[in-house]
Amino acid sequence: MTHTPLPVIRLNPKAQARAIRHGFPWVFADELVTDRRTRALTPGTLAVLEDTERAPLGVVTINPNSKIIVRILDRDPGAVVDTDWLTAKLRHALALRERLYPAPFYRLIHAEADGLPGVIIDRFGDLAVIQPNAAWAEVLIEPLADALVAVTGVTTVVKNGTSRVRGLEGLPDETLVLRGDVTGPVAVPMNGATYMADVLGGQKTGLFYDQRPNHAFAAGLAGGARVLDMFAHVGGFGLAALAGGASHALAVDSSAPALDLATQGAEAMGAGARFATRQGDAFTVLEALGTEGAQFDLVVCDPPAFAPGKKALDAGLRAYERVARLAAPLVSPGGYLVLCSCSHAAELAAFRTACTRGIGRGGRAAQLIHTGFAGADHPQHPQLAETGYLKALFFRMMD
Amino acid sequence: MTHTPLPVIRLNPKAQARAIRHGFPWVFADELVTDRRTRALTPGTLAVLEDTERAPLGVVTINPNSKIIVRILDRDPGAVVDTDWLTAKLRHALALRERLYPAPFYRLIHAEADGLPGVIIDRFGDLAVIQPNAAWAEVLIEPLADALVAVTGVTTVVKNGTSRVRGLEGLPDETLVLRGDVTGPVAVPMNGATYMADVLGGQKTGLFYDQRPNHAFAAGLAGGARVLDMFAHVGGFGLAALAGGASHALAVDSSAPALDLATQGAEAMGAGARFATRQGDAFTVLEALGTEGAQFDLVVCDPPAFAPGKKALDAGLRAYERVARLAAPLVSPGGYLVLCSCSHAAELAAFRTACTRGIGRGGRAAQLIHTGFAGADHPQHPQLAETGYLKALFFRMMD
Repeated sequence: MTHTPLPVIRLNPKAQARAIRHGFPWVFADELVTDRRTRALTPGTLAVLEDTERAPLGVVTINPNSKIIVRILDRDPGAVVDTDWLTAKLRHALALRERLYPAPFYRLIHAEADGLPGVIIDRFGDLAVIQPNAAWAEVLIEPLADALVAVTGVTTVVKNGTSRVRGLEGLPDETLVLRGDVTGPVAVPMNGATYMADVLGGQKTGLFYDQRPNHAFAAGLAGGARVLDMFAHVGGFGLAALAGGASHALAVDSSAPALDLATQGAEAMGAGARFATRQGDAFTVLEALGTEGAQFDLVVCDPPAFAPGKKALDAGLRAYERVARLAAPLVSPGGYLVLCSCSHAAELAAFRTACTRGIGRGGRAAQLIHTGFAGADHPQHPQLAETGYLKALFFRMMD
Repeated sequence: MTHTPLPVIRLNPKAQARAIRHGFPWVFADELVTDRRTRALTPGTLAVLEDTERAPLGVVTINPNSKIIVRILDRDPGAVVDTDWLTAKLRHALALRERLYPAPFYRLIHAEADGLPGVIIDRFGDLAVIQPNAAWAEVLIEPLADALVAVTGVTTVVKNGTSRVRGLEGLPDETLVLRGDVTGPVAVPMNGATYMADVLGGQKTGLFYDQRPNHAFAAGLAGGARVLDMFAHVGGFGLAALAGGASHALAVDSSAPALDLATQGAEAMGAGARFATRQGDAFTVLEALGTEGAQFDLVVCDPPAFAPGKKALDAGLRAYERVARLAAPLVSPGGYLVLCSCSHAAELAAFRTACTRGIGRGGRAAQLIHTGFAGADHPQHPQLAETGYLKALFFRMMD
């Protein structure tokens, strides 16, 4: 955090300087002059980026190990990226969340779209979890934690370094408590439900805020309904449906620890008697429920990313179709079927087609009443359209 | 409404019989055997559709004057399309709206997606407006009105025959009061605001329910905000923002009657003192506000369809970009800019790109916090993706 002059790096003629000038936040490895000096820069080094004419484009961070070799931090080439700079970004992000949500439970920083490239920060009341998924944030983790405490008043800060994308940046797996103390799962209020989040437990037992508006929409359909929540994790849709007045919810997941947390959530809501779980493989359970002739008024399927990349797209779309085909017969006449995808590679139209086909092959016809995306605490950088990974389609049976 | 056998019509080999069997609701003119007998059928005649092998596909309606020559009404070839049949469709549609909305103000029937091809019905409390935009509904307008009264209890039924698409069906312009009496504008409660709808006045002074969830999202951003509502019509976004706690809203529209209704709505809400209007061309007013250096915390631009068809797409996208370019400088730092399109032809990605470019050319950078579509009382037929015409992009300024 010294104010010595920053090293200068330069675009090569292949670079889309115009796109960068118009807001594109990345430079790819083949767009930069990578001489020996540049290659020797420590991952996460701050630098000034220049175009091929040596005109400065802003302050950036470089990671010679990453395909995204440069991430733009500030369009002002004189910017000083220090605790104050981080504080200003966090304040700007906080103002949006405070306007949107009645309680301090949200994604506070969503990477590029919130001006902190590669950084995710989720807030759980007095506790926050930082995912430094780019090298610069790994380097600046301490000033980032300081700024976070100063801006939000959180007392506990966790560094969660388990994201798959850290590998692309050459960063190790590492989870640390940076400030304060974690004593157990955190109770998270959302849409009138209570979720139990194990903030140290990683993906299978953490909590995702991104489905919040889709949980809310489902809850609005759930009054008096028998609900099936497939791929339930810690009970995202199922507990929201109970808060919305569902008569009963069955949560299915392959993870026993996740279902334990879901049950704890239902009990914390005083809805334990309306909640049940079934551990097992989702496809096996869907088939078994079909054989049993089970009927639900609201069925939600929120599977893991079946198409995480372009190579897996065809197989992924077939898996989404299969989910729809197995789930549709379980929906009562006039009932609701919610089908979600968190696959980057499966675009909205392709996912919708797979779902529609699956519903048809399941012997049903449906109307599409709502299409939802991730909540507003997961903003998109307008020039990184692929960040719109989450889709939730709300179908209603016509018969 | 007699039960004499229906005439039989038949697909030709060009037809996508498989698509129809899987739920596609239309047959185009070049897909049907159109012999002299078929061409002689009165527009709106009910018939049984057969495939090329003479296997029945269902009960349909034929309009030899329309490019959409056949619309599927019922997959059951033995179905009797009478008042009872219409009643069942209306009941199914009503059940969704009663679940979604606390008061009887909504689109009750959204054409194909609600199982009544080409028919729009909007409900305003005890009054309903039918748009019979396909010949069969023109023929069956009386039983449709009877069923509507029986199912909903409305006392006034208006037939609004002014839609542009009626021309494609060979239907005349005609607006009639079929039941009861219309005495003046109807007060419509929505998102805590009050709108005045002139149900006989046609498009420029009617009311659109489709923006309801987007109005609600904007209202959630509006606490304490100075609001600019461009292309305001009867005050859709502006009045919702006042209900959400905006300090002041300025509504701009080219139509004086629409702005009069908006003012009546603001007064009915007790918010007249926080509401002002400015009549004029939107582009002229945006430029004037820019010259004046006006600043607002929330700016909404909900223009008419700039790209109603594919031919107008390029010019339409340029117009959307221009709106964004002129509006962005009017937004205060950290403020919100909502850009809408109701153009079928402008797909989401193309519209988003035009908006992003316009914001950049207006000298601003933004994050995209929310993408909204039409409300759930405007369901989509899953195989008519183009019905997803309405897009609302919520941007927040990064500076």
